[in-house]
Amino acid sequence: MSMAEIDSVRALLTGRPRPVGWTQRRARMEEVCAADGIPPGITFTPAEIAGIPAEWSAAPGSDASRVLLFLHGGGYCSGSIVSHRTMAGGVGKAAGIRTLALGFRLAPENPFPAALDDARAAFEALLAQGFAPQDIAVGGDSAGGGLSLALMVSLRDAGRPLPGCAWLASPWVDLAMTGATMETKDAVDPLIHRGYLEELAGAYCGGADRADPLVSPLHADLRGLPPVLVQVGSAETLLDDAVRIAGRLGAADVPVRLEVWPHMIHAWMLWSARLTDGRRALASAGAFLRGRGV
Amino acid sequence: MSMAEIDSVRALLTGRPRPVGWTQRRARMEEVCAADGIPPGITFTPAEIAGIPAEWSAAPGSDASRVLLFLHGGGYCSGSIVSHRTMAGGVGKAAGIRTLALGFRLAPENPFPAALDDARAAFEALLAQGFAPQDIAVGGDSAGGGLSLALMVSLRDAGRPLPGCAWLASPWVDLAMTGATMETKDAVDPLIHRGYLEELAGAYCGGADRADPLVSPLHADLRGLPPVLVQVGSAETLLDDAVRIAGRLGAADVPVRLEVWPHMIHAWMLWSARLTDGRRALASAGAFLRGRGV
Repeated sequence: MSMAEIDSVRALLTGRPRPVGWTQRRARMEEVCAADGIPPGITFTPAEIAGIPAEWSAAPGSDASRVLLFLHGGGYCSGSIVSHRTMAGGVGKAAGIRTLALGFRLAPENPFPAALDDARAAFEALLAQGFAPQDIAVGGDSAGGGLSLALMVSLRDAGRPLPGCAWLASPWVDLAMTGATMETKDAVDPLIHRGYLEELAGAYCGGADRADPLVSPLHADLRGLPPVLVQVGSAETLLDDAVRIAGRLGAADVPVRLEVWPHMIHAWMLWSARLTDGRRALASAGAFLRGRGV
Repeated sequence: MSMAEIDSVRALLTGRPRPVGWTQRRARMEEVCAADGIPPGITFTPAEIAGIPAEWSAAPGSDASRVLLFLHGGGYCSGSIVSHRTMAGGVGKAAGIRTLALGFRLAPENPFPAALDDARAAFEALLAQGFAPQDIAVGGDSAGGGLSLALMVSLRDAGRPLPGCAWLASPWVDLAMTGATMETKDAVDPLIHRGYLEELAGAYCGGADRADPLVSPLHADLRGLPPVLVQVGSAETLLDDAVRIAGRLGAADVPVRLEVWPHMIHAWMLWSARLTDGRRALASAGAFLRGRGV
């Protein structure tokens, strides 16, 4: 791990004043997440699933019978299929499977449970297309990690088939922000701070309780979920979200692996082009997805 | 994972009344840990290192230039080189390296810091024998996991070279027993309960504070340690020791991986002969040790 690598990402992220308001924030996210271009050799194909905008990605040799339903980060309020191409395409290439990135509806225009409803509809549509549940993985970064968990809890509660495994990168699972690292890592995290998260949580929750298990899956009954990989950087205010959800999943008899990557920042795999540990983390996630966590 | 497999281990462990007193406990530990015999194809060679009884193990083809210094479990009060042969030999075979199991002094006859002093002396002796620090791993189960951490903290504090990586199986790192799973997993853990741990902690600590970082490495400054793998079962009162130490290691910028294995019990790898997930956990630990956590 080279500090120069992560420092160049920090410079990219903090070189200008923080954006203000949803429009500016959305534009900035598109810009910084896509700063390094798209991984070579991956084909992206626009699609629609259950009436929701989506995009397939596939690297040469990908197993077309398997798919990762990818749910992007951005605090439920920003981010898109396009902004997260490096991550969705990169992990699919590492896993040797296709990905379907979902353009779920965003808050504040569409608060909870709009994103969850879209994720659920997309998963059901994949089943209807003939994918076996075991051949579907779900995953994503940040809010997309929390949404992946909420999706699985919602499917289990409804008695529906579950995906084969799940991948959570820097997941946001506690919208009440009760983790100790919200304070202890505040000075080293260049992206995620309590004030920003408070705005996002307010926008997403609408009238919902922040402790609702489908809003904050840290509080969900997690029994019966498939194997889960949680990856987080040590320079994240959300470190405790990752550690605590791993502990809760484990206590609920879910096979779980937690990886803490020193000095990495929130959703660092987005900048894998310049981060050795971004590529290594994606390789580890790829192996996990390929083996369905076994 | 087959529940019948772990149920047969539970039957082995709980088929008779719990032993009373150190003599009975030590005899029972020798008996139950060694119940399944030694893995085939491993050679065990008695040794002495720094004047401490020890035993080498090697499987055919093991890399003789690399060694795992193995520190056995038993709450600092029981367990031995012989009782833990299946674990020490098994993980060394999986890693393709030699192991040196250490017969460190036990409490209550030899309270803290006797075990730590012995571990430290053995590590220094391996260096003196010509092993490069990177070619030495440290690890063990239960108290041996906590002792492995204490050893690394002690080496770092003294400015000495550190091992290349560490493996902690069901580690006991909080002798004050403040983890929530001490209660929430009490009914499903067949081995480890608060009353027993209180006796062990009292015997080991002697006059030392249970919050001393070399007694309870959960409270240690963990910065600068090499990569650590933590493995724990979901049916353990010590589950929270594993989750919390992984969180603390990660927060201290140590590369760490936590694996929670559903339904497995304390130090389940001891019974790998009858546990698929014991063999799988050893294989995962072996790959970690082989790659020095990278």
